[in-house]
Amino acid sequence: MRRHSLQLDAEGRLRHLLTIEGLKRQQIVDILDTAESFIGVGDHQMRKVPLLRGKTVVNLFFEASTRTLTTFELAAKRLSADVLKINIDTSATVKGESLLDMLRNLEAMQCDMFVVRHGDSGAAHLIAQHVAPHISVINAGDGRHAHPTQALLDMFTIRRRKGDFAALTVAIVGDIMHSRVARSQIHALTTLGVSEVRVVAPKTLIPSEVESLGVHVYHDMKEGLRGADVVIMLRLQKERMSGAMLPSENEYFQSFGLTKDKLAMAKPDAIVMHPGPINRGVEIDSEIADGPQSVILEQVSNGIAVRMAVMSMVLGRPPIEGGATEGVSDNVPDKRSTP
Amino acid sequence: MRRHSLQLDAEGRLRHLLTIEGLKRQQIVDILDTAESFIGVGDHQMRKVPLLRGKTVVNLFFEASTRTLTTFELAAKRLSADVLKINIDTSATVKGESLLDMLRNLEAMQCDMFVVRHGDSGAAHLIAQHVAPHISVINAGDGRHAHPTQALLDMFTIRRRKGDFAALTVAIVGDIMHSRVARSQIHALTTLGVSEVRVVAPKTLIPSEVESLGVHVYHDMKEGLRGADVVIMLRLQKERMSGAMLPSENEYFQSFGLTKDKLAMAKPDAIVMHPGPINRGVEIDSEIADGPQSVILEQVSNGIAVRMAVMSMVLGRPPIEGGATEGVSDNVPDKRSTP
Amino acid sequence: MRRHSLQLDAEGRLRHLLTIEGLKRQQIVDILDTAESFIGVGDHQMRKVPLLRGKTVVNLFFEASTRTLTTFELAAKRLSADVLKINIDTSATVKGESLLDMLRNLEAMQCDMFVVRHGDSGAAHLIAQHVAPHISVINAGDGRHAHPTQALLDMFTIRRRKGDFAALTVAIVGDIMHSRVARSQIHALTTLGVSEVRVVAPKTLIPSEVESLGVHVYHDMKEGLRGADVVIMLRLQKERMSGAMLPSENEYFQSFGLTKDKLAMAKPDAIVMHPGPINRGVEIDSEIADGPQSVILEQVSNGIAVRMAVMSMVLGRPPIEGGATEGVSDNVPDKRSTP
Repeated sequence: MRRHSLQLDAEGRLRHLLTIEGLKRQQIVDILDTAESFIGVGDHQMRKVPLLRGKTVVNLFFEASTRTLTTFELAAKRLSADVLKINIDTSATVKGESLLDMLRNLEAMQCDMFVVRHGDSGAAHLIAQHVAPHISVINAGDGRHAHPTQALLDMFTIRRRKGDFAALTVAIVGDIMHSRVARSQIHALTTLGVSEVRVVAPKTLIPSEVESLGVHVYHDMKEGLRGADVVIMLRLQKERMSGAMLPSENEYFQSFGLTKDKLAMAKPDAIVMHPGPINRGVEIDSEIADGPQSVILEQVSNGIAVRMAVMSMVLGRPPIEGGATEGVSDNVPDKRSTP
Repeated sequence: MRRHSLQLDAEGRLRHLLTIEGLKRQQIVDILDTAESFIGVGDHQMRKVPLLRGKTVVNLFFEASTRTLTTFELAAKRLSADVLKINIDTSATVKGESLLDMLRNLEAMQCDMFVVRHGDSGAAHLIAQHVAPHISVINAGDGRHAHPTQALLDMFTIRRRKGDFAALTVAIVGDIMHSRVARSQIHALTTLGVSEVRVVAPKTLIPSEVESLGVHVYHDMKEGLRGADVVIMLRLQKERMSGAMLPSENEYFQSFGLTKDKLAMAKPDAIVMHPGPINRGVEIDSEIADGPQSVILEQVSNGIAVRMAVMSMVLGRPPIEGGATEGVSDNVPDKRSTP
Repeated sequence: MRRHSLQLDAEGRLRHLLTIEGLKRQQIVDILDTAESFIGVGDHQMRKVPLLRGKTVVNLFFEASTRTLTTFELAAKRLSADVLKINIDTSATVKGESLLDMLRNLEAMQCDMFVVRHGDSGAAHLIAQHVAPHISVINAGDGRHAHPTQALLDMFTIRRRKGDFAALTVAIVGDIMHSRVARSQIHALTTLGVSEVRVVAPKTLIPSEVESLGVHVYHDMKEGLRGADVVIMLRLQKERMSGAMLPSENEYFQSFGLTKDKLAMAKPDAIVMHPGPINRGVEIDSEIADGPQSVILEQVSNGIAVRMAVMSMVLGRPPIEGGATEGVSDNVPDKRSTP
């Protein structure tokens, strides 16, 4: 079984969300459409819906991330789920017996979803391989591999701002090499049929095989941004700086930081995105981050709607051929009985 | 714009609660009346009401305080709000870029209220100056400046016990100099028209300008308590002891600790209050703290009702002139759909 | 007043749950029957019920225990209670003034239940002696004394698997001396009229007075397991190993670890139980822990239902003689108004 097929059930529907890779265009569109239903008319968020009432969502964060943890917690609560935050030894590997026993226990407690963030690539997949049939796993970031909900919220933000994907040129700028965000974005953008995806970075931060993913490589930022509709800045992990891989923060900013000057190369109505948290003056100038082309805070808002969409879709699958799973049949009376 | 006007909207209604200073008498009375509605008949608390269903309250505590944090958390939950507790580096200043970015993110996640506690005077005001229009800020204590919900719950407790404020003599005893509680109480008591407000403390713990607030200063505790209807003891921050400012705990207790002996100077039906947590044998004798005149635990109970009142009032303002805020219009279907 | 009578009200109904000792057979059966009502038809758990809506459950864990804490938190949330987790200095004693003041404050905040876990025997009793009349205390494990909800979920698991208790032979294997679980199990099994209760352990791990509890002592594990219907393995606290009390882990496993070989002495349909978390290869072989006779994960699932039963029973007592307690009268409209 290939990694990405693990996330689909026998009917091809999303059971886990582990990676963008292998998702069909229509599946991504379905997620974006569902997310749209959580954004009310005139941006009045529909705050609280009973879709996951009675369900239990467990946040398993082996890697500290207040922001991402908070958005998953909020998304789950606004779906009326109960939320557990498990304090985990962040040095624990997902292969240890004691962790697997902990997961078995959480399953036995009738938890329904594990949201997993881990510094090791493949951690969420490994957990998904071992969970009971009624559990869904959401990958909230694994090593350098994937961060699918981030990519989906980015697609959602682009679609709301730019409409049709086919006409767009999208430039992703920064540490492509170590970025799970970039990998997931590239898969999403190419699957959605974006006209051109560019990656812009110094040579040391571009993985060797990247062109096989269907992207164009630029080492000069102004060239890379020329005519772009969407500019996605990546967060620079400052710890990379200490190695030989990168020059000083200041030199990096000169070459690859987003400034008014460089942004002028993109289309006048280009939007500027960033997964956050931003390093002001390192990968992006404050004037741009807070400026009229920035949609960085829209991304955060959209992140709630997209995570609500994914969570409700993986737990809300209708039953297959009589063999109703526990989670699904539970859902039906809940939907009826809650106003 | 003066500090205290920041907390009122264009119609003069409470949008934030930052300080008692500047509130009109009727505004304070409205809060107390609303709190009264959360105390059921015969002290049967109305436990859970759907007034803030779908709202998200964020506790931003830069200063550790289990008690105050717990009361805000309980008040929010009993209003059916979702509650987020953000782990904050308590050494962070409210002026740092990273904090402001965090607040922007929480706003983008459609949070509705920040409850702020910080060791720096003015912290809650500073945050209130920067938040989006749909956010309300509640000051849960800032430096030596203000602790308005504490003062309001104290007024509520006094009104329940003593009725009309006009006839009362109230003595506040202890470290007036460093007490945000005392400052807020003095503003509340004078606004409510208390007959006489006294502050009782050694000279080193009385701020020089205090008489301009309309209080009478006493350095002898028996004199200060003579004929009082209400005796409010302040918590002595033990760290003050180490400086030259104060004698030993024992000496302090001899002069300014509340004992049966000293309390006998007040009216026979005087009530004894303390914001907690109490230092038994330092500022108050256990016999008094646990005795029949003590209303210290009533203050704690009343604190929930008063915080429910403030939270529901600042988030429940009806919309002004067609320009419905997001928070308000959301509230309407919630109120209808929840039993 | 004897310790165990503290947990019953004037009508003999459960007010606290502190220990199994002193409970009547019918009281235990009532708890198991109530737990049964929380397990849906065909193991479809009834996930969320409004029985404790508006109630506040406080977890006071002085001893770290993610698993037990999580099951109590889940049980409370599935009963629709609000849950507070208080961060406690685990070195605090339950006798200190500051702790008692904290409890008084939580009572004043209209909390309804304290779930207490502490390293000192008798801690939950001590707290129960001091709480206000509207508070219920649940002992979630105190020193070497008792762990009543664990014993109840074990009884529930045995009854679901084996039916009538009267015909059963039950062997409890391991560190009987230091085990609050074993003590509570022995009281429950004998009260329920189990035919024979055996304890199996090296001499150093058997308390001297144990036979007075009505059990048979075995020092040879194969003899102790011969013909047993139920084999309950205890967790070995590895810190005991360091003392002179025990041989090496390996030697212990040879003599008292549960292996296929030793389990063959029990009845062919014997079930294997363990309170968790298990030490694989110390007290139990992985082959057995994960094998067909193991009901270890069923115990975890049942733990939620049993804790829901206990919580709803102690807080749901109907009022006595007109003097309706606050908690009870609150409950009535909740039951009606929630779908």
